Amino acid sequence: MGKGLTKRSEDYSKWYNELVVKADLAENSSVRGCMVIKPYGYAIWEKMQAELDKKFKETGHQNAYFPLFVPKSLFEAEEKNAEGFAKECAVVTHYRLKTDPENPSKLIADPNAKLEEELIVRPTSEAIIWNTYKGWIESYRDLPILINQWANVVRWEMRTRLFLRTAEFLWQEGHTAHSTKQEAIAETQQMNKVYADFAENFMAIPVIQGNKTESERFAGAEDTYCIEALMQDGKALQAGTSHFLGQSFSKAFDVKFTTKEGKQEHVWASSWGVSTRLMGALIMTHSDDSGLVLPPNLAPIQIVIVPIFKNEEQLTRIETYVNTLVKNLKDKGISVKFDHRDSVRPGAKFAQYEMQGVPVRIAIGPKDLDKNQVEVARRDTFEKTSVSQEGLEEYLENLLKQIQDDLFNKALEFRNNHITEVNSFEEFKQVLETKGGFISAHWDGTIETEEKIKELTKATTRCIPLEGAIEEGVCVYSGKPSKRRILFAKAY
Amino acid sequence: MGKGLTKRSEDYSKWYNELVVKADLAENSSVRGCMVIKPYGYAIWEKMQAELDKKFKETGHQNAYFPLFVPKSLFEAEEKNAEGFAKECAVVTHYRLKTDPENPSKLIADPNAKLEEELIVRPTSEAIIWNTYKGWIESYRDLPILINQWANVVRWEMRTRLFLRTAEFLWQEGHTAHSTKQEAIAETQQMNKVYADFAENFMAIPVIQGNKTESERFAGAEDTYCIEALMQDGKALQAGTSHFLGQSFSKAFDVKFTTKEGKQEHVWASSWGVSTRLMGALIMTHSDDSGLVLPPNLAPIQIVIVPIFKNEEQLTRIETYVNTLVKNLKDKGISVKFDHRDSVRPGAKFAQYEMQGVPVRIAIGPKDLDKNQVEVARRDTFEKTSVSQEGLEEYLENLLKQIQDDLFNKALEFRNNHITEVNSFEEFKQVLETKGGFISAHWDGTIETEEKIKELTKATTRCIPLEGAIEEGVCVYSGKPSKRRILFAKAY
Repeated sequence: MGKGLTKRSEDYSKWYNELVVKADLAENSSVRGCMVIKPYGYAIWEKMQAELDKKFKETGHQNAYFPLFVPKSLFEAEEKNAEGFAKECAVVTHYRLKTDPENPSKLIADPNAKLEEELIVRPTSEAIIWNTYKGWIESYRDLPILINQWANVVRWEMRTRLFLRTAEFLWQEGHTAHSTKQEAIAETQQMNKVYADFAENFMAIPVIQGNKTESERFAGAEDTYCIEALMQDGKALQAGTSHFLGQSFSKAFDVKFTTKEGKQEHVWASSWGVSTRLMGALIMTHSDDSGLVLPPNLAPIQIVIVPIFKNEEQLTRIETYVNTLVKNLKDKGISVKFDHRDSVRPGAKFAQYEMQGVPVRIAIGPKDLDKNQVEVARRDTFEKTSVSQEGLEEYLENLLKQIQDDLFNKALEFRNNHITEVNSFEEFKQVLETKGGFISAHWDGTIETEEKIKELTKATTRCIPLEGAIEEGVCVYSGKPSKRRILFAKAY
Repeated sequence: MGKGLTKRSEDYSKWYNELVVKADLAENSSVRGCMVIKPYGYAIWEKMQAELDKKFKETGHQNAYFPLFVPKSLFEAEEKNAEGFAKECAVVTHYRLKTDPENPSKLIADPNAKLEEELIVRPTSEAIIWNTYKGWIESYRDLPILINQWANVVRWEMRTRLFLRTAEFLWQEGHTAHSTKQEAIAETQQMNKVYADFAENFMAIPVIQGNKTESERFAGAEDTYCIEALMQDGKALQAGTSHFLGQSFSKAFDVKFTTKEGKQEHVWASSWGVSTRLMGALIMTHSDDSGLVLPPNLAPIQIVIVPIFKNEEQLTRIETYVNTLVKNLKDKGISVKFDHRDSVRPGAKFAQYEMQGVPVRIAIGPKDLDKNQVEVARRDTFEKTSVSQEGLEEYLENLLKQIQDDLFNKALEFRNNHITEVNSFEEFKQVLETKGGFISAHWDGTIETEEKIKELTKATTRCIPLEGAIEEGVCVYSGKPSKRRILFAKAY
């Protein structure tokens, strides 16, 4: 167990908060709700970014950058979007500070530098981007526009938690423009699939792809696709969303194009995003009471080598061997660290790398050298094995792949064991309280029922799974007819 | 000449503004002073980022992320820094919007959601970062801290120009903490050298390394190192700065460490940054009256291939050859585009790629195929050559290297021809008005003289060159004694 780390079974929420800090991922800043992402946490985020960016470019997207600020009048233009975000907006009202006349060591916002129009710090960029696209689009030849932006956004949340819900967070937001409804929907679906592929095959996080119900949709969207993951405490986490925006923004900003036939039509839109919230999903999918567990794909250090030595001579002998090993592993593209600090004991090093989720640890002492072997320990299973130095590089390369697969399969089994079909509201409540996880239930399709269920159980509709079958049934709450099951869960 | 592009000799400033837009690099947004960086411009910035990031990591730095907002009380803590930036600060005062009671379709900042303490949108992050470092540093073992951040910052400039001076810009800011003064100075110097190496060997922009005079230093720094480039119109451009901050921030935020000997001492600091301003330097160093000229290292498309064809059959024949060529070039890591659009004429394609600065253009028609050759055109010199298809890949690979070198040498020659030693104020004014460029002159070391020269000529001190020799002389303005020449210029 991690030193001083609360057990998950004792207090899951406390375990999470402690782990984020002890594994050196992030910490709260002196700005309410804003976090500092520490180098180790940021290195993991950079790996996510690099892989996502590659996938976006492979699917024909380019990066660009749009302003941090949105003038209030633009923000207001798409009503539903404005209404959806108005309560969380940071507002810039002044553009200058001056010395406080009552206290010369202090500064105040200069009353003579009040903005004529307030600026909103972007909570999302549809407004500023569609106002820009207006100038870029004249004819069908200018379409599609396939753009992504890596940026910071601000949503003034009242209750914040590191990575999961912060006032400022980092994300990417794709914003695309199309000449047909069909093409915009295909884009929306494609990007949700890209997210699902990334979550499962890169982050080892199994997800369910589906559509949000009307009440859970993005403000301004006609349809929202999502990937939903399940955390170890049985709560769901929305890990990514892709929105079919219809013509809501092109109408709000009057963005029309001339068709091949010479007609004027409004442009069709999609937007899609994932954020540093994925760090929270990563932590709560794989980690344990000893700290972080990282899939090798996301590990800044994939293998750490700890020498066990009593004197300088022993260390020198170990180093001679390790230097070659390190070089060979680096040549294979494996990130490896040789921790030969003599100021820290091996036990303390073991604990640190366990807490930080380094997938594989190699320990090596004089006896191992004598036997031409090393001790290999897996972070995910704690399994220790003596492995021959011959062919060690290939062994480790395969082991990293094995760990990546095992983590996914373990999470998949847990997730699959936590999808429960229920057929009555009693059963719904009982499963929710005792087992948690996703509840697959019939629903009458009304917002009223969704709200009532949320009020009574705190469970929300997570998604209408893309793979769900048509099945006649009755709503678990209202008893009214239903044509398919959807997923409910308590959620982050 | 670029279609509709103003000539540099007619109006350099207008040429620049037009080029940025016509080459599809950036445009003004509807937010005062903030720009939209378009995909083509952003792709160039991404190449700068990737190279710089590699250099930072090679020199032992890690990336992290700190909040966008700085609480006013923290911002005030380091007085000189606060004073230096106070007049350019965007200030967040509210965290919520609500429906305007007088006009239900409008929103207003909710008076009930006024922040107790205003938040400054970071103009630079020393304050928030040093307030964070306070929690990270206890002993000499915690030092050095070598961190970089890629971020957006906001400085409310009154007169803005795309890339050169914008209210919001993108940059990187390194912030390091050290146990000795010597080490912090060495870091400051090292990073200025990294910038110089990057500018010269990656961007093909010759720079002069030097120190700023006291009045031109970063607010809060004890010493500012810089790299100064020279634009084609004879004006200088500060392309990067590296600051030795002494103990000003560690004292303002009370960041102390325990030395090996058990004493408590304040930490020593450096900070250093380059920004999207480098895009302006790039444009104004290499480009011409036909548009952008890009060094191959920074070109999103290094080679464009334009087929010359009259019918489908000819295009098919060309494509068969080009597909292999494209594959071979990509295998060599060269980015190549085959523009086979039949809706655009070759002449229009040529003009577009000239405007966008693609270093090498290949044109290929049926006659070229018959002769086993292609036509290769250089963007920088407009030189056209018929080149055999045999060994073409190696020819092109070498040509790209040649262009990179030639651009640097051309800019270096121009820069060296525009450093003029003057020994009187008359000569100073005459050179400044007729020839421009850097003026190497003796200066008495006082702020008064600097101000007077600026007032009379608009020239500012650019730097005290690191390589300048000790030389007895008298100040060109005051006639007082001086021990070395420094560089003056009109500047961006």
